[in-house]
Parts: sequence; C-alpha cells; structure tokens
Amino acid sequence: MNGKKNIAIVGFGGMGRWHAHMIRRREVCDLIGVYDIRKECMEYAEHKGINTYSSFEEVLADRRVDVVVIATENDMHKPLAIAAMDHGHNVVTEKPVTVSSADLEEMIAASKRNGVIFTTHQNRRWDGDFLSVKKVIADGALGPVFNIESRVHGSRGIPGDWRGKKEHGGGMMLDWGVHLLDQIVNALLPDRKIESVYATMDHVTNAEVDDGFHMIMMLEGGVRVCVEVGTSNFIELPRWYVQGENGTLSTPWDLTQGKIVRCTNWEEKDVVPIKTAAGITKTMAPRTDDTIKEFPIPLIDSDVHDFYRNLVDALDGKANQIVTHEQLLKVMKLMETAFESDRTGSVIRF
Amino acid sequence: MNGKKNIAIVGFGGMGRWHAHMIRRREVCDLIGVYDIRKECMEYAEHKGINTYSSFEEVLADRRVDVVVIATENDMHKPLAIAAMDHGHNVVTEKPVTVSSADLEEMIAASKRNGVIFTTHQNRRWDGDFLSVKKVIADGALGPVFNIESRVHGSRGIPGDWRGKKEHGGGMMLDWGVHLLDQIVNALLPDRKIESVYATMDHVTNAEVDDGFHMIMMLEGGVRVCVEVGTSNFIELPRWYVQGENGTLSTPWDLTQGKIVRCTNWEEKDVVPIKTAAGITKTMAPRTDDTIKEFPIPLIDSDVHDFYRNLVDALDGKANQIVTHEQLLKVMKLMETAFESDRTGSVIRF
Repeated sequence: MNGKKNIAIVGFGGMGRWHAHMIRRREVCDLIGVYDIRKECMEYAEHKGINTYSSFEEVLADRRVDVVVIATENDMHKPLAIAAMDHGHNVVTEKPVTVSSADLEEMIAASKRNGVIFTTHQNRRWDGDFLSVKKVIADGALGPVFNIESRVHGSRGIPGDWRGKKEHGGGMMLDWGVHLLDQIVNALLPDRKIESVYATMDHVTNAEVDDGFHMIMMLEGGVRVCVEVGTSNFIELPRWYVQGENGTLSTPWDLTQGKIVRCTNWEEKDVVPIKTAAGITKTMAPRTDDTIKEFPIPLIDSDVHDFYRNLVDALDGKANQIVTHEQLLKVMKLMETAFESDRTGSVIRF
Repeated sequence: MNGKKNIAIVGFGGMGRWHAHMIRRREVCDLIGVYDIRKECMEYAEHKGINTYSSFEEVLADRRVDVVVIATENDMHKPLAIAAMDHGHNVVTEKPVTVSSADLEEMIAASKRNGVIFTTHQNRRWDGDFLSVKKVIADGALGPVFNIESRVHGSRGIPGDWRGKKEHGGGMMLDWGVHLLDQIVNALLPDRKIESVYATMDHVTNAEVDDGFHMIMMLEGGVRVCVEVGTSNFIELPRWYVQGENGTLSTPWDLTQGKIVRCTNWEEKDVVPIKTAAGITKTMAPRTDDTIKEFPIPLIDSDVHDFYRNLVDALDGKANQIVTHEQLLKVMKLMETAFESDRTGSVIRF
C-alpha cells in the first residue's frame, strides 16, 4: 500500500476544488474522482478533466480509493464520513470536523471499529503568519507571554450559502473560530490547561447563526487569550497582537506590515507627559526611542501540503497523524463551551 | 456670592499643579492658596508665587475659601473632603472620587448635611477624541452601534509613586479605568442599562494592584463595550474602535490618524478571495473600493475649563453640577463589580 494514495473528493464547492488543486500536484496523492450532488459542480469537474462519480454509493464501492475527502456542508460530514469508514475507507473531512462533540465521538468510534484513519483538514496550522508568531513566542523574543489576541475581521457578513443556516452547521464560530482555536490550543500552547471560557456571539447580519464572536480564554499560569471573528468590520484590527513582559508583537495578515517592539531599558528619565485636550498623562506617554527597539517579524516558510504528506505517512504507518482525534474533540468542546457561555451569559470552567 | 470663586488646592503634586494652572487663567476662579504635606511641594508653590497654607486646618479655617480642590492620594480624598465639607466648604476631588462606594456614600452624606457642593474632576469628559467619537455615534454616521472598544495603552508600568500601593487606592482601574468608564456610562450612553460585567486584571509589573485590565460590559439592546487599560503595551491598539451596522471607526488618540469606513453598497459582485499560505478566504477578503467609502473623523473643539464654569454656575444656583453624585456612584460600583468579576472569575450582573 506504500506510495501515492488515491483520493476521492465528496463535495466539489470552494474547498473541494481547493483540495483538488492541491492533490493534483500529484506529489503524494492522485485525485481519482469527485462527487457532488450539484449538477453544475459535476459539469465543472468534467470541464476540468476530472473523473466524476455518479453517486456517493459509487465512491463507497470504489476499492481503488484510499482516502475520501469530505468537503460538503458541515452537517453532512458525519453521515458521509461514517458511511465511508464503514466501507473501509480512510477519511479526511474539511473543518469543522462536524457540528457537535457527540457527533464527533460517533465518527471516532467508526474510525476505531474499522481500523481506518480519520482526520480533519486543519490547514491553517500551516498559515505563515501563525507559524511566524509561534516562532517569535517560542524563541522568547517577547519574554514570558501573558496576552495573545487572534482576530480575523471581514466586512461582508456570512457568505450567502449554507454557512448562514443553523441546520447545516453555519456560523462563524464553526467556520473560522475552529481554525483560530485549533491554532492556539493544539499548536501554539497545546500543553497549557484552559481554565475558563467567556464568549459573546454577534448577530449583526444573521439572527440564525453567529456572524462573529468575541471569546476570552484564561489559561493556566495567567495567560489570557482573546479570539475574535467579525464580519461587520470595515476596518480591521491586527490579525495578531501578543504581549510578553519584554515586548509586544502586532501585525496584520501581511507580516511585512507588522512589527515587534521590545523594551531595552525599563528605567526612563525625564518622561515627558502627553498633553491632551483635557489633561496630561505621564503613564501613557510614548516611550523614548532609547528605551525600546523595533524589529521586523521573521517570516517562516510553510507548505500546507505537509498535511497530505503526513496523511500518506500515517497511512503507511510511518508517522502519527498530525491532527488527532483528541485535538479535534478539544476544539469541538471548546466551541460548545463558547456557545454555552454566550447562551448563559456566564464564564464556563473548561 | 455670585462672581469669581476662591479655590484652595490640597495636594500639590502633578494634578494639583494642573488645577492651579487652569485656575490661574482667572476666568471664573481665583487660586487663594495651596497646601501639601510635602515641604518640596510648598517650596515649588512659593517659587511660583502661589500663596501657601501652613496646615490643612488653616485651609479649613479660611472663610474666604469657596471651594477646596483635593488632589492627594486617592485614599485621602474621603477624610479631607468630609472635613472640608463639615467646615462649610464646597469640595472638588480629583478622580477617582474615592476608593469604594461605601466611602463615597459617606462623602455624599457630608455634602447633604452641610448643604455644600461636592463633585469630582472627571476632566476626560472634555477630551476632544471622546467628544468626537460621541458625535460620530450620535449623528448615526456608523448606523446602529453594537460594539464600542475604548483602550488606553502605555508601556512603562504604574508610576513609581503611591499609584502602585493598594493602601493609597493605587492601580490602573482607579487611575484610568475611572475615566474610561465615566466617559461611556455617564456621557456616551448614560441611559443604556448595564446588564453584565466581566473583567480580568493584569499584574505584569505589580502584584499588589492592577497595572491594567480588560473589561467587557454588555448593555441593554445587545451593545457590547470593551474597556481596556494596559501599561505593558509597547505597541498601542487604537484608542477607539467602534462598529455600527453600516460602518466602523478606528482611531489612535490623534484623530487625524484615524478614520471612518462606511459601507455604501452591501452587495458585491466578483469577490476575489484572498490567497494565504495555507488556504483561501472569500469571507475575509477586503471589500472592493466601490462598496465602501472612507471619511475623516470630524474634530470637536472642547474646553475642559467648562468644568470650572459649571462649578461656579452650580455654586451660584444657575446650573446643576455636571458630574453628579449618582454618576460617581455608578462608576464606583462598576469598578467594584469589575474587581469582583476578576476575583471570582465570573460574569457579574450589574
């Protein structure tokens, strides 16, 4: 079984096509075919010279398939994934893996009883901005870190498809929150216990599902994490804002526009107060240049194709899968905790 | 009694000197003298040609005094203010009015039993940035507002004086939080009920008192307010970030560096996804220029001397005092609620 794997994609919308694009690099996988219930998506695949299946059952029955990639509406991940695993296929779902931790437990059980690999495409662990911020923190460039703010701001509401519908697992927490939380609790600070969660959901353009949220997690050791998604933000706040005891990092998505400012000398003489219209302040006066130093953010190369390389290695028994069941469960429970916090207006112990 | 009022200042440090500077404009008040327990402060006053008292008792006994301005450590406001009122003097304290709502109730009682004016110098209601943001919101330039973020970020910790000591009422909540909360709950949205408070205090440079805090208030009608003070922020986030349904305002303290972006057309065609290292996003792609428009923030003139003008008018029975006892109590209870939220790690109904 070693060697390139045959991938079938179920759900050939935006992300299905993205997977096809990646797989067709043919480095570690081959795209054996795609299936979508939408006629126009099948026509698009044919137009692109991609083999199509005439039904999901045909995918299930195709013994050449090594892995089924599921990139449908979120609520369909579970039934399709379990059916595929029960037919002996390995499965990769798009994120979010599914819409509840109870559903996820069923999917994990299907993986175990069939002895197949089941994982989820948490592609944003390979985002260059994330990996760079992770390295800055790990290198201690800011000193001990006590505050991490991760924000993604857009301004066109929720896309006008199933992402706006509750029954399909819509909403920004499941769409983007799942990435931002996975980055922090599974890759940036995986060993740091989450003590509490406070979250409020936005419903600016959509009453049915959240079109954004604000979430605060307190981690052990007094580290505060703020995760925020907004779709009515006509001006973006920084993608990352991180405070350590010796410095601050702030950057938009484009790291070349961001910076690190480190304190080189805590003691300052002759602080000049800022004069504002209605008062003065020394406390908030900007530091003088001889006590701080500005640095660019080091850029980290990344290749999201590592996800597929790892998948193939895991199938060949050469590696453990990177995105584990425990990690998926942790984030799913964290999102459920956030919704509970919003519903009850309270801080929830995690 | 109509006409200019004689002011005595008790506590001649930074803010006492600021009051002296304002009063010596001699527009509506005269500075009759100052008192401080510190010899060097008295010498400074004499050097500036300002009359000095040899004791607080001498201030109390001076029948020419109309108003005693108290600009000492926070914990001294109450005993000094009550003594002054019990001697028939009107009183203005620096902010915070005192260190607890119980203390404040005693001060209000002293004001009532002596029939004197008692108020607090909430000077930042006259900050130009605040008044401009207030006008933008009131004019409806952003549409219905659902999120208001007010931040003040510095990077030199707490000043190395009594502000770092709990016994003197130190800490950033009492020092700066009192301004930011007063602006929002007493001047920006005074009629909007506060439903809940969640706050976490920072102790990056000081274990005894908070050297910063993050506070989220949910107001009736679903308006979220975030108030934040930091003293370990080597890069500042915007002073104001306000979201309405039709636009966003973001600005540093200097409004000429800020902007408003309004949506002029919700529907967009041909959204081009952003390609990032590990994926694409249409949801978060920047808007095209034909659907948004950028505006400068209108600058509002303000004069904090209005505080003294109002004080004199109130003394003359021509106006009600701007900074009322009810407002002071509201903010004091709000700060106590924030500390309780931090202590218990929970959301507190207000």
